[in-house]
Amino acid sequence: MNELTIPIDLNSKIHIYEQIYTYIKNEILEGRLTQGERLPSSRALALHLQISRSTVNLAYDQLLAEGYIEAMAYKGYFISKIEKPLRLEKTDENNTASVVEEKKYQFHFTSNGIDMKEFPYRTWQRITKEVLNDESKELFALGKPQGDLELRQTIAQYLFAARGVICSPKQIVIGAGNDYLLILLQMLLNKKSVIAFENPTYTKAYRIMESLGFGVRLIGMDENGMNMEELEKSGADIAYVMPSHQFPTGIVTSVGRRNELLKWASEEKQRYLIEDDYDSEFRYRGKPIPALQGMDHNGNVIYIGTFSKAIAPAIRVSYMVLPESLMQEYEKRGKLVSSTVSRIDQKILNEFIRCGAFERHLNRMRKIYKGKHDVLLDSLKGFRKKFKIQGDHAGSHILLCAKYDVKEQWLKVQAEEKGIKIYCLSDYVIENEGYKNRPATVILGYAGMEIEDIEKGIMALKEAWKI
Amino acid sequence: MNELTIPIDLNSKIHIYEQIYTYIKNEILEGRLTQGERLPSSRALALHLQISRSTVNLAYDQLLAEGYIEAMAYKGYFISKIEKPLRLEKTDENNTASVVEEKKYQFHFTSNGIDMKEFPYRTWQRITKEVLNDESKELFALGKPQGDLELRQTIAQYLFAARGVICSPKQIVIGAGNDYLLILLQMLLNKKSVIAFENPTYTKAYRIMESLGFGVRLIGMDENGMNMEELEKSGADIAYVMPSHQFPTGIVTSVGRRNELLKWASEEKQRYLIEDDYDSEFRYRGKPIPALQGMDHNGNVIYIGTFSKAIAPAIRVSYMVLPESLMQEYEKRGKLVSSTVSRIDQKILNEFIRCGAFERHLNRMRKIYKGKHDVLLDSLKGFRKKFKIQGDHAGSHILLCAKYDVKEQWLKVQAEEKGIKIYCLSDYVIENEGYKNRPATVILGYAGMEIEDIEKGIMALKEAWKI
Repeated sequence: MNELTIPIDLNSKIHIYEQIYTYIKNEILEGRLTQGERLPSSRALALHLQISRSTVNLAYDQLLAEGYIEAMAYKGYFISKIEKPLRLEKTDENNTASVVEEKKYQFHFTSNGIDMKEFPYRTWQRITKEVLNDESKELFALGKPQGDLELRQTIAQYLFAARGVICSPKQIVIGAGNDYLLILLQMLLNKKSVIAFENPTYTKAYRIMESLGFGVRLIGMDENGMNMEELEKSGADIAYVMPSHQFPTGIVTSVGRRNELLKWASEEKQRYLIEDDYDSEFRYRGKPIPALQGMDHNGNVIYIGTFSKAIAPAIRVSYMVLPESLMQEYEKRGKLVSSTVSRIDQKILNEFIRCGAFERHLNRMRKIYKGKHDVLLDSLKGFRKKFKIQGDHAGSHILLCAKYDVKEQWLKVQAEEKGIKIYCLSDYVIENEGYKNRPATVILGYAGMEIEDIEKGIMALKEAWKI
Repeated sequence: MNELTIPIDLNSKIHIYEQIYTYIKNEILEGRLTQGERLPSSRALALHLQISRSTVNLAYDQLLAEGYIEAMAYKGYFISKIEKPLRLEKTDENNTASVVEEKKYQFHFTSNGIDMKEFPYRTWQRITKEVLNDESKELFALGKPQGDLELRQTIAQYLFAARGVICSPKQIVIGAGNDYLLILLQMLLNKKSVIAFENPTYTKAYRIMESLGFGVRLIGMDENGMNMEELEKSGADIAYVMPSHQFPTGIVTSVGRRNELLKWASEEKQRYLIEDDYDSEFRYRGKPIPALQGMDHNGNVIYIGTFSKAIAPAIRVSYMVLPESLMQEYEKRGKLVSSTVSRIDQKILNEFIRCGAFERHLNRMRKIYKGKHDVLLDSLKGFRKKFKIQGDHAGSHILLCAKYDVKEQWLKVQAEEKGIKIYCLSDYVIENEGYKNRPATVILGYAGMEIEDIEKGIMALKEAWKI
């Protein structure tokens, strides 16, 4: 084929080469030009269409690059063999995202709430501006997978002073959120590990680890923490614990139990404790309870903490302190994964901590949350006959355990009818094994609520529950 | 025991309650107070030490919270049972991080380089400042796991216009980097999947998927892309391909081969193609080659792209377009993982694209990279007798394939001796099966280099290789 009369529009905004390219491509796709057919030489086509040869070459290059045509030395350009894909039935597009309508409540006692009114926006803005100056070009480069040394040093110092965590910056891995760190951690752990969780627990961690293919076990708790006998029997290699303030029960793992856990972990190779220290910054009585990690002399504790709770949920910076044995695995495999936190964000956070703004913010928030906590306890005075209060003096939620025979579901539904959203222990208990006779327990989060709403909400709850 | 003479320093900065707490704790840890011993009542101790009772209570609360003591109703406080942890030999701390000394080269032809001199820092700073104003408080909240709808809409529009990707924003998942998206993707795929990679390939993706426990296979390439016969025989369920500009070979998968891949994927359930479209923004001749995703009518393509290459490595924002079937899995499990990109960063990026700065930046960078590309090709004129140039006119690196009998290692070492860092195809070939007779191939990245250094570096290379 030496003639290919392509209708060219010289006034079109579309470049001539593109018009040629599109025309030939369509001819091929619609089967009018078929496999093995030869295209005119660029010289011949240029002459035929009265355009420059380089324009034709450009169109041919494009067709060649996309595989529509093939070049054969001394012979010219030929149409390629193109296999048409099968077409299956298309699935319904509207069926994908299940739209969950979120009901609006007047009082929402969520334990995820955090009070952002007092966040030092101006300080954050000032630091951001300072970090993003003209000398900051190197911050736009990719940092180390583990995170910048500067921030790791700051975190190591902070963890030692505030949490009694003993580690060197080289043991710290920075990542965008606890969930991410868990899925990174899986790359370092034995794939066949079985992970024991406290029950009830932070169900997200449980589901993530289960989704990743780990065996999971649920272990009951007593007032001192995870039940050791159940743990021993479970066959687990790893225990996921929240010793400083368990979520949601508020139980503090006792020193004795901590030592038992550490002993358990040291008895076999590849046994670890994952210490999730999610809200230890907030304790309203006495000083913070030191981390389990600081008591570990055998390198069995993986410590995970976050700035999302203490600063702002948007601050996607969490950290994980790895024991030596897992650092070796990290060097081998974990390092493959590039850092999930930009150097810019790392630098801003580092400055925020270094200049003292973080400590000031924490102190302010501790005061604010304690104020809310006290108002909540005060408002609950009339409840004490029917409910025992647990998990107070720390964190951002408390528990109400019924002393009388009542169903959690009834408490929840009655509250919802009055526009009050509360949570129940059953929202966090994964299986009901061994939980059949426990008292109905309600979880009231207060950190994100206004003081006025706490008072009004509890008054409304009183009415709802007929107390 | 009713007498506990604690030496209290009234002038100390340490609060009295803390002095009491520390004293009793140490007595317990050092075995001088043992399990079952009763502490004096707070009233008695306060009297004894001539301090307020609430101070003693605070110290006891702390000991109680940390499990050192137990409270028994009507009886008082007793020392808990504390099990001492076993102490194993401590591993050598200095042995952890293998310090790799990075040799400095005068000319570094890395394919990872990117030119940050032209990055619109001022625009980025201005947008950041605008985003972080007083009305931005909601940006400090945690966003949707999938990413903010606004940014997903922008990405969907961009992908359609620039890459021919056809998707709705609800199919897009935003994450902090391609590596992260791959490890998130694993949660959606069948754990028993076997993944086929082009060989040579982007070795990091290969190693990550292998580390995650997937079966991996290596498939040879011809000039049209992945070898279909090998793929069919491999038993793979998933093929990881870079059809627009394969790394490192620069091969563009032909339309015919694209259709064959799509047909292969549609022939069995749970077969997928992972399309890694890592550098498609940079093409210096003709228009960009449309994505494979746009040709897929059966929902078999998982499309992954990133802003790290086109904007800056520090911009930890990548995106993944999931087919409908995997969206269902994402809704079930992927959503458990909170977003790894802060809402602030999402907003900044969104504004950067919306205001046209991204397009202007891309056009500018295309011109700059093309300039460097042309200089490199020009400098290589004298090499053409001995080397074939491949993978040019796109991306940020080219390949030199030797036409004569020479060892890659020799080329590399000779270059290094002259202070020139180059890469070889063998750095990316994972097994040498089927690669025994291939010509020695050198990879020259140029995007991050100064034009002057490209010229000088190639001159030095000429000398090093005696060309």
